[in-house]
Amino acid sequence: MMEEYLKFAKDIALRAGDIMIHYFDLGEEGREKADKTLVTKADEEINQMVITEVAKRFPDHAVFGEEASSSNKSKQLWSCDPIDGTTQFAKGVPIAVFSLAYVEDGKPLVGVVYDPFTKRLYSANKGSGAFLNDVPINVSKKPLNYQAIVDLEWWPEAEYELYLPSHTLTMETSAYVLTICSVTQAAMKVAAGQYEGCVFAGTKGKSVDLAAAKVIVEEAGGIVTDLFGKDQRYDGDIKGGIISNGVVHKNLLSYFKLT
Amino acid sequence: MMEEYLKFAKDIALRAGDIMIHYFDLGEEGREKADKTLVTKADEEINQMVITEVAKRFPDHAVFGEEASSSNKSKQLWSCDPIDGTTQFAKGVPIAVFSLAYVEDGKPLVGVVYDPFTKRLYSANKGSGAFLNDVPINVSKKPLNYQAIVDLEWWPEAEYELYLPSHTLTMETSAYVLTICSVTQAAMKVAAGQYEGCVFAGTKGKSVDLAAAKVIVEEAGGIVTDLFGKDQRYDGDIKGGIISNGVVHKNLLSYFKLT
Repeated sequence: MMEEYLKFAKDIALRAGDIMIHYFDLGEEGREKADKTLVTKADEEINQMVITEVAKRFPDHAVFGEEASSSNKSKQLWSCDPIDGTTQFAKGVPIAVFSLAYVEDGKPLVGVVYDPFTKRLYSANKGSGAFLNDVPINVSKKPLNYQAIVDLEWWPEAEYELYLPSHTLTMETSAYVLTICSVTQAAMKVAAGQYEGCVFAGTKGKSVDLAAAKVIVEEAGGIVTDLFGKDQRYDGDIKGGIISNGVVHKNLLSYFKLT
Repeated sequence: MMEEYLKFAKDIALRAGDIMIHYFDLGEEGREKADKTLVTKADEEINQMVITEVAKRFPDHAVFGEEASSSNKSKQLWSCDPIDGTTQFAKGVPIAVFSLAYVEDGKPLVGVVYDPFTKRLYSANKGSGAFLNDVPINVSKKPLNYQAIVDLEWWPEAEYELYLPSHTLTMETSAYVLTICSVTQAAMKVAAGQYEGCVFAGTKGKSVDLAAAKVIVEEAGGIVTDLFGKDQRYDGDIKGGIISNGVVHKNLLSYFKLT
């Protein structure tokens, strides 16, 4: 069954990627949502496509998407962030990704993330390893030192203050702190062993950013928890996220002093 | 004469882009330099190509490059950053750019920046406007508010502390502070009206990061100064940089309190 879900998710991801590239090439600038963040036609079209396809194929399943959700409720849920990194997408920076996860009773069991700009399809099925374009991937083993990259996704209205602790982190460890504006893209860099960690401030409705990343990063040997170091459900609100190669997890957590 | 320099620089930029894509697709991971930053074969090959081509075409001119420079000295200088954003390049994130400027007595007169991932060629010739793929571009008119994007390029070993002031900036203005890891790419986003500003901590030998950006951003209607708000030479060390749409320049400077 999980294999079937994974194949379905991969097919959807490639179609979503085509929509992303179409609007990116048109230079779509998006418009403001009520929460003052940006949304583009691409976000909406992809979100709707996911709702339609899930309804056709798995009519009993629900969809929880960043821009829209299905009306039915179910313990069998497809969690979708149509475009993670919309701001950069709308500004013409090619780092946004599509993210889709199959979540059962709050637990992500299948995850797919697609970066259409570099044609990289990340996928995992719980218990079966993580893959990039069907080649197995693994997290790095680096500690927090000058060779480490930590991505911070935080903004001034966020519930938790993560910017000042990141300053202490970088001063004490020399890890290079970036803010690329897509926690899901950054999490895939952790899964593939290129970044060592990321720290995410998202809370309300933000499980869509991490649901696929949770299973992909962990199948690649890493760890994904909330900002307090605890496991959490991925079917509604979350308490931020710490995504890491495992080696740096406790060290990262210690800087945010939320445990 | 400037037209000839511009055409030369554009040709070189497209060739550099081909080299970047070649190594990016190979997944080149690079190696550490003495200063502990990364360098890839692509940086070195492009830098050498620029030295060779300038020597052939303008034998009296000098080349100042991030990875290597020509042995001759001249007031007529080609300033080159073969890959700005090498760390992201080596980690497989497609945001790095090639940058080349013609600098006379410390003043950039011709600038070309090429992003081979989105095939965007930014160019300017002092006094003749700025262009993106030969279409005129202009900076935005946005002030520092929640719609504004400010890119910060800072690292813990940098001479000036810019991270803590950026926290105050984002808390007070709600501008979204990113760190994409390429000041030249971010500066082009300012030139094209997509970001409002960027703040750069680079000093020693770092004029190569900003020489082309200086003329392109200013021809697009923006302002480029050092961190103290002053004009500076672009043929050696610099005192960081503030790159903006003009509207936010004084406001940006006020947060770093270096004036």
